[in-house]
Amino acid sequence: MDMMKKVAVIMGSDSDFPVMKNAVKSLKDMGIPVEAHVFSAHRTPKEAGEFASAARDNGFGVIIAAAGKAAHLAGVLAGHTTLPVIGVPMKASVLDGMDALLATVQMPKGVPVATVAIDGADNAALLAAQILALSEPALADKLEAQKKAMAAQVLEKDQKLQAEVAAL
Amino acid sequence: MDMMKKVAVIMGSDSDFPVMKNAVKSLKDMGIPVEAHVFSAHRTPKEAGEFASAARDNGFGVIIAAAGKAAHLAGVLAGHTTLPVIGVPMKASVLDGMDALLATVQMPKGVPVATVAIDGADNAALLAAQILALSEPALADKLEAQKKAMAAQVLEKDQKLQAEVAAL
Amino acid sequence: MDMMKKVAVIMGSDSDFPVMKNAVKSLKDMGIPVEAHVFSAHRTPKEAGEFASAARDNGFGVIIAAAGKAAHLAGVLAGHTTLPVIGVPMKASVLDGMDALLATVQMPKGVPVATVAIDGADNAALLAAQILALSEPALADKLEAQKKAMAAQVLEKDQKLQAEVAAL
Amino acid sequence: MDMMKKVAVIMGSDSDFPVMKNAVKSLKDMGIPVEAHVFSAHRTPKEAGEFASAARDNGFGVIIAAAGKAAHLAGVLAGHTTLPVIGVPMKASVLDGMDALLATVQMPKGVPVATVAIDGADNAALLAAQILALSEPALADKLEAQKKAMAAQVLEKDQKLQAEVAAL
Amino acid sequence: MDMMKKVAVIMGSDSDFPVMKNAVKSLKDMGIPVEAHVFSAHRTPKEAGEFASAARDNGFGVIIAAAGKAAHLAGVLAGHTTLPVIGVPMKASVLDGMDALLATVQMPKGVPVATVAIDGADNAALLAAQILALSEPALADKLEAQKKAMAAQVLEKDQKLQAEVAAL
Amino acid sequence: MDMMKKVAVIMGSDSDFPVMKNAVKSLKDMGIPVEAHVFSAHRTPKEAGEFASAARDNGFGVIIAAAGKAAHLAGVLAGHTTLPVIGVPMKASVLDGMDALLATVQMPKGVPVATVAIDGADNAALLAAQILALSEPALADKLEAQKKAMAAQVLEKDQKLQAEVAAL
Amino acid sequence: MDMMKKVAVIMGSDSDFPVMKNAVKSLKDMGIPVEAHVFSAHRTPKEAGEFASAARDNGFGVIIAAAGKAAHLAGVLAGHTTLPVIGVPMKASVLDGMDALLATVQMPKGVPVATVAIDGADNAALLAAQILALSEPALADKLEAQKKAMAAQVLEKDQKLQAEVAAL
Amino acid sequence: MDMMKKVAVIMGSDSDFPVMKNAVKSLKDMGIPVEAHVFSAHRTPKEAGEFASAARDNGFGVIIAAAGKAAHLAGVLAGHTTLPVIGVPMKASVLDGMDALLATVQMPKGVPVATVAIDGADNAALLAAQILALSEPALADKLEAQKKAMAAQVLEKDQKLQAEVAAL
Repeated sequence: MDMMKKVAVIMGSDSDFPVMKNAVKSLKDMGIPVEAHVFSAHRTPKEAGEFASAARDNGFGVIIAAAGKAAHLAGVLAGHTTLPVIGVPMKASVLDGMDALLATVQMPKGVPVATVAIDGADNAALLAAQILALSEPALADKLEAQKKAMAAQVLEKDQKLQAEVAAL
Repeated sequence: MDMMKKVAVIMGSDSDFPVMKNAVKSLKDMGIPVEAHVFSAHRTPKEAGEFASAARDNGFGVIIAAAGKAAHLAGVLAGHTTLPVIGVPMKASVLDGMDALLATVQMPKGVPVATVAIDGADNAALLAAQILALSEPALADKLEAQKKAMAAQVLEKDQKLQAEVAAL
Repeated sequence: MDMMKKVAVIMGSDSDFPVMKNAVKSLKDMGIPVEAHVFSAHRTPKEAGEFASAARDNGFGVIIAAAGKAAHLAGVLAGHTTLPVIGVPMKASVLDGMDALLATVQMPKGVPVATVAIDGADNAALLAAQILALSEPALADKLEAQKKAMAAQVLEKDQKLQAEVAAL
Repeated sequence: MDMMKKVAVIMGSDSDFPVMKNAVKSLKDMGIPVEAHVFSAHRTPKEAGEFASAARDNGFGVIIAAAGKAAHLAGVLAGHTTLPVIGVPMKASVLDGMDALLATVQMPKGVPVATVAIDGADNAALLAAQILALSEPALADKLEAQKKAMAAQVLEKDQKLQAEVAAL
Repeated sequence: MDMMKKVAVIMGSDSDFPVMKNAVKSLKDMGIPVEAHVFSAHRTPKEAGEFASAARDNGFGVIIAAAGKAAHLAGVLAGHTTLPVIGVPMKASVLDGMDALLATVQMPKGVPVATVAIDGADNAALLAAQILALSEPALADKLEAQKKAMAAQVLEKDQKLQAEVAAL
Repeated sequence: MDMMKKVAVIMGSDSDFPVMKNAVKSLKDMGIPVEAHVFSAHRTPKEAGEFASAARDNGFGVIIAAAGKAAHLAGVLAGHTTLPVIGVPMKASVLDGMDALLATVQMPKGVPVATVAIDGADNAALLAAQILALSEPALADKLEAQKKAMAAQVLEKDQKLQAEVAAL
Repeated sequence: MDMMKKVAVIMGSDSDFPVMKNAVKSLKDMGIPVEAHVFSAHRTPKEAGEFASAARDNGFGVIIAAAGKAAHLAGVLAGHTTLPVIGVPMKASVLDGMDALLATVQMPKGVPVATVAIDGADNAALLAAQILALSEPALADKLEAQKKAMAAQVLEKDQKLQAEVAAL
Repeated sequence: MDMMKKVAVIMGSDSDFPVMKNAVKSLKDMGIPVEAHVFSAHRTPKEAGEFASAARDNGFGVIIAAAGKAAHLAGVLAGHTTLPVIGVPMKASVLDGMDALLATVQMPKGVPVATVAIDGADNAALLAAQILALSEPALADKLEAQKKAMAAQVLEKDQKLQAEVAAL
């Protein structure tokens, strides 16, 4: 039996780790093998490019890339691989992440980046899991269970709200 | 042997088809089974929800959703499935698609949408292919070949440019 | 004699309650029957849809929906009812509520959402009251009195200002 | 039996009529009495204010106000009445209606404007109808029928799409 | 000899006073007669309109109007007078005053508002003084002196900077 | 008796003339002496500065400055004079004049620019007239008459609208 | 004597050539050796990186990079060289070049890109010439002469304007 | 042997010094002669213009200009010199520096400003060094060494990350 493919979580700067560790942790919690790196599209372009070029052969299935400001990391990695690349625009500048969002999502034809919300580390991990789950039925079941639990949690909050509203 | 999973291309309006037919066509050209629908998050919410809820069981692997203005379609479909959902914000309003981009990408925790560029139909199809290719080695090879051809095309254009520059 | 129609205040998340409780409280203060719920367009789409579909029959006259980021809640509810739906875009993301505003107001033809200001909980309640007051003369009188009191308060502040200005 | 309340459609300029006549026409088509005026918040503030002040007594139930650029009309009318006021931001300037949207929706506490999409004349009419339908069962039935027809139309378009997709 | 014309400083809310008192104070410091009021375009439209209509006859030469969010105050006053009206967009909402700026500056043909920077109370006072100075030679001299002092202050800061730079 | 003060209309480029000639023409039509120039803040800074420095002595009362893109012209002129300077942001770039608006209005303390709407040539002329009218009673009367004519014109359009609405 | 250093004009796509040929031509006209290429940060990242890495040794002094949408080209080239890199954001998407501007200018510490206006091909060439002129006195003289000619041209336009204004 | 050319660091206000001292310090650290000044485009236009006009003759090679809000300083200096001018938009207003960015970068043809990121003092210094290094081989070597050290630092951070990731 094949091993599950790995997810790479690449950050443009170690200052992105406080946000991105949620992604790493939730991937681990779902039993998905994960490898994290600090590689910069501008400061270590060679290492970033080589990592992406070799990623499929090294057993990766998805690359998550997080960067702020003129966020080129996800796009540069996508330029070196045909694996799906998920981009997380980081709120790292005075412009509240709008610069990172546009620099991540507005990719030219032929080089897509699957962009999630600004600072959306959790959703990047979940999207990676959804992708891997296509060939991992057990993971798909886990995601379904998680989705049901999330719904149940909302309904529970709705219950709790009733008391608060009555007290107003 | 398993059949390849299908890709669903869902449009919020038939006016999106002129842009989205590129996605349908390029999926077909790559030999990926595709099914297209007009379902609206607001006008036919029941059909949209039922389609997404049943999509995994009906053999789909990826859902592409294209919508403009207050583009809720991708998010609503993602609310009904754990399959990866790719969102294409359409330039359908006076705001040049910025409304659709934000309404598609800024999803809350737990319900990711893999967002591509405004009007990025081609990249949505390519991203879907990249996702399916994780368990389809032949498709992965096709994507690699396509990527090389794209690079060769750029280098060819670089060659052609030299004559134009010399003539200035 | 008919009972007054109820107003539903639906939140996408219980984190919206600190802002939205103003709406609930001011509806109560005006003697309008109100029911509040946490229903998510993405996490509990079934419950949200069913609530909206049955709202008219269940004695509701207006639905207020508050959500942030890619704020689909008001639009999704409006897709399931022909009651007037008031949308409150919440400042819940790094983009200061601009994403929620566009995702709430830019609705397609056939499915309007009556959008108020970002975090405009009070005005949502007041608008709901204005709508119900069309068939509730006593409520209309209350609104007129409130409007006059509000004007008087401004004029009083103008009086107070004179001393502060004189002291400069 | 009471007569149905009237809807006022107020435009800041006669140049708004090509867009707003859709609202007038669809109100007429639904059998709702409608009166249209050109009143400017800046050029004829007296007439605008007097109209709004007397609107409830003159049998109006809803006021629709359409204006572009620094769109003050809806807010100014709302300052003179406790009737629900629906604002339609018009794409009348080089800023694509974003100025009109913000000038219409960002109203202060105590004076709500129910804002619809930029150039959203149809939805303004529909929202007015939804409001009046609260005390007009026949109109409510008409809106339900219209909503069903709209859904059927989408499903029909979905059927037609199948042939186009097959032909690609 | 004629008395100097007065400047009116009108605020949409008393919460604007902490910023606007700078304008009142600097007008007083220049010896310009000033009168301040809280008048709201939406809550006390009648008082606002009457004040502006009578302002020229009451000895005013310039009206300064400060408001935030959907800032209609300056425009509404300008609709009632042919005196020059200066608008100060206030940073009163989550949108950092961009809503107030557009709602103040994008006035239609025939009703200008002389708009200054967001929260630009000082410049509004200075602009009012510049306008009055056209027929007040002594005030013009004062403004020239002030301008020279301001330049001298910059050059002094330049001198001070040299030590700080040398110490780096 | 004193002569009326002149208005200077300065353009950053002759390509601004098609829009700005409305300002020149309407000033002339009101009997206000006007002088127009092409002076660039960047290409002819010396001429621009000298013109502004000498403007008061040369009989000018108001300077209107029109420029697009990084529109520095109004601010630079304001740096050289204590006359009121009116800025007209021109829609001269791909950013629809938003760059020119911010570059014109966001002036630092001590150097105000009275900013009008993007491409607001007519309102710049009208504002200049309002300023001059403070010491020109005949001009003030003309402006009042113009304002009344403008109101009458709106009411006439309202009359005409009735037939069009009846025909729908 | 040393030869003048060369300027490289790199485009992300041959569709940028209609705009960028102005840069190439004006560099040629100033006698500056220029070499143009189509290299994509995403489609030919290896060629782009190798070109930039070797640029200093190959006699280049400045690199101009033009790209649209998520414009990574200038940043990626800057990641591979310590030569000054000038970025030209292209208006290549529905967002009018705002995406390209932010993706070009908001570079992280350590990797600057000298950004010019959207579609600012001419200014990119001129900036490159200004940089090279630091060690090329003849080129510096040429730039001074050009600047004077530009000023003269503005003054000439000012002259021509007088007749047009007189004719109004 | 020629002395290295100097870099001027001009600030529009001494309040910019806390950010800009990084630029001054890093230029000093690289052994580049630097001179800093507070000159305002609006308050001391004469001094600013004279400084720029004489800069080349006074031994300057590059001018760095930092300003916020309607940031005219870089453009005004560029209007008086053919030296390369680097603009640093400062986050000095409620608009997060977006106003300063557009006012700095959107320069008209013929007067380029090499714009760096909002508050990008370090990159402005580095860009100045890159420009001077074209005729200073020792400085070029220093920049190469710095670039390598920066890359090494990223790789070191990548190493450190491994322990943090393992501990999650």
